[in-house]
Amino acid sequence: MRPVYLDNNATTRVDPEVVQAMLPFFTDQFGNPSSAHAYGASVGAAMKKARRQLQVLIGAQFDDEITFTSGGTESDNAAILSALEVTPDRTEIVTSAVEHPAVLTLCGHLEQVRRIKIHRIPVDRRGRLDLDAYKAVLSPRVAIVSIMWANNETGMIFPVTMLAELAKEVGALFHTDAVQAVGKVPIDLKSTAIDMLSLSGHKLHGPKGVGALWIRRGVQFHSLIKGGHQQYGRRAGTENTPGIVGLGMAAELALKFLDDTATRVKSLRDRLEDGILQRIPNTSVTGDRMERLPNTANISFENTESDGIPHLLGRVGIACSSGSACTSGSMEPSHVLSAMKTPHGAVRFSLARDNSEADVDRVLEVMPTIVGKLRGSPSPGPRERSREDVRSGPCLSGSRTGCNS
Amino acid sequence: MRPVYLDNNATTRVDPEVVQAMLPFFTDQFGNPSSAHAYGASVGAAMKKARRQLQVLIGAQFDDEITFTSGGTESDNAAILSALEVTPDRTEIVTSAVEHPAVLTLCGHLEQVRRIKIHRIPVDRRGRLDLDAYKAVLSPRVAIVSIMWANNETGMIFPVTMLAELAKEVGALFHTDAVQAVGKVPIDLKSTAIDMLSLSGHKLHGPKGVGALWIRRGVQFHSLIKGGHQQYGRRAGTENTPGIVGLGMAAELALKFLDDTATRVKSLRDRLEDGILQRIPNTSVTGDRMERLPNTANISFENTESDGIPHLLGRVGIACSSGSACTSGSMEPSHVLSAMKTPHGAVRFSLARDNSEADVDRVLEVMPTIVGKLRGSPSPGPRERSREDVRSGPCLSGSRTGCNS
Repeated sequence: MRPVYLDNNATTRVDPEVVQAMLPFFTDQFGNPSSAHAYGASVGAAMKKARRQLQVLIGAQFDDEITFTSGGTESDNAAILSALEVTPDRTEIVTSAVEHPAVLTLCGHLEQVRRIKIHRIPVDRRGRLDLDAYKAVLSPRVAIVSIMWANNETGMIFPVTMLAELAKEVGALFHTDAVQAVGKVPIDLKSTAIDMLSLSGHKLHGPKGVGALWIRRGVQFHSLIKGGHQQYGRRAGTENTPGIVGLGMAAELALKFLDDTATRVKSLRDRLEDGILQRIPNTSVTGDRMERLPNTANISFENTESDGIPHLLGRVGIACSSGSACTSGSMEPSHVLSAMKTPHGAVRFSLARDNSEADVDRVLEVMPTIVGKLRGSPSPGPRERSREDVRSGPCLSGSRTGCNS
Repeated sequence: MRPVYLDNNATTRVDPEVVQAMLPFFTDQFGNPSSAHAYGASVGAAMKKARRQLQVLIGAQFDDEITFTSGGTESDNAAILSALEVTPDRTEIVTSAVEHPAVLTLCGHLEQVRRIKIHRIPVDRRGRLDLDAYKAVLSPRVAIVSIMWANNETGMIFPVTMLAELAKEVGALFHTDAVQAVGKVPIDLKSTAIDMLSLSGHKLHGPKGVGALWIRRGVQFHSLIKGGHQQYGRRAGTENTPGIVGLGMAAELALKFLDDTATRVKSLRDRLEDGILQRIPNTSVTGDRMERLPNTANISFENTESDGIPHLLGRVGIACSSGSACTSGSMEPSHVLSAMKTPHGAVRFSLARDNSEADVDRVLEVMPTIVGKLRGSPSPGPRERSREDVRSGPCLSGSRTGCNS
């Protein structure tokens, strides 16, 4: 049984080229970049190269705008806490109801312990941000807006460029958790009003334990982790040089594969969605099908348990998820789907460049039986629909989900 | 010219066995440990094994006392900030004047921004903590004592077991930055009153970008980095599984080599010290020669510039340092040597299990010429002394340093 991995929004396989790039920095060029001798100097140059590789991927104006961190969660925490420190007279934060726990848990803590007012902008049933609610809470009391570029569970893309311009009008900083977007969609930061952006290595075929926070030149920043003078004083601690080199290479490869992601991976995702909607009644795509990441399919199956499908798919070697990895391990209902007022029983399939048509076909082959079993009825078998029907919106299967939005 | 690396307190070469242990977790077992499917489960088991490997090395009672972090600096920050959060009525911190910047910079920040009172216990000219000063500042106002197990620049070992017992008497938490001690000296935490301990992978032939904070069971802890539920809620963010597996293997190997470090590496270090003191006049060992790490030699050369010797040694392929890597890059005078009132011109040689007699002999061969050049005089040549003289204390070379302590 060939395993099929369709949980790439949880984490990705590290590209073998990335591993090759990292290897010398464990045992050969293992110096501490802060060391004055030759062992330090050579790894310093490698870190510089990694900064440039990331710079190109995200369209940053300067490579020194990139600070390496231990991952997306640290980057998110650092951005938000810095904003509160540099503008102590501003005591409000604007975020969305569907952010990653890295933002929402921190905001909840700040609300409770430091009495920061948190505005959590709701989304509609298609997962689109309530723009009127967003505009209504923007004020000179807002220290920072933190809204994700793309949602990890549904793949929904938010209009961060426009949101950042609105934030700028009230003098608030704008941060975006772009952990799911970087490497999947084109990003050109220099043409936006965004101030800070978080990204993570392991979501783009780079290593775990490394990420970055992009901080626009001129934006005042206070480090979260304090200590030595590393990284222009923005992040103390000996740099994870193999990880940083790996992240740089992962960025270079992601750029190279950006077209492949936008076309081939997207068409695999569409084939998967269309195939499921065609074969299984009472299913629907969660979210707006237009403004989404090209790799993510979140599909609601009426009358199934939340974890039932991923569990049975797992038994036949197919990995997917009932939510994000961060929440699926905890068995709590997805806050994203709750915010979208979507009934549970949704499954997230997230693809990547190492997926093939055979992977998709394998899922389509087993799904009718699995869903049939969970619904307590014999396998419904494929239900034929015209391609036209399938592409026209999120409500084809007759599910109530999304239809009222 | 064969390179000689004697800067192992800055960072170590990753052991090839560690790299081998890590490799499968990049491309094969690459799952997210929070994922409910098989890709997640297998790496969960590997993390459990790593916790146990660390548990044995540091003599912890339970493996779940270990929280993985991005390194020593994060661990130090997390320990100290947690203590302030869990005991908000206590507003003082006790530390030493010779801590790593990971502790001192954070304390300086807390003093300035949060008005926490910081007691920095001084050391004498041999680097020994002023115990009377320590006892005098302990009070129920102290939230946490943070004193390192061993100093990174001099290798001096502090009596943390006794210091922790004294802290316990006033109800303060006791944290120790043991980044330089773990893997070099035996540690048995369960027999102590220590509450938290920081360690780092890359100081013990493990990878950079990973470390741990040991938190004794029962000690209340608030996470520094907030987000998902990873690691019992103590450290959010997808775990750096290859790094964690590497750290575990590094711990296992460090335990295996502990005797080698205590005997062979120590005798190499002594050979280096004795050889330099014999060959070059007006030199002295910084610190107390008894209570030290077995691998560290910090030697003062009168009438030389602080960076002169490391610079010239670097030209002939020998890596050492004029202070810690964290400060040597910044060209600031060492706060450790300043606290010991040691004149500058000190050089730190730090050895490890991959060093050989040939490495030491190479240093001894070139040192007289290099020091002679810097002192503006012809090479002094070896000055013969009896072995008795050399072993008797830190003041043999006639340097004023250390003699008045």
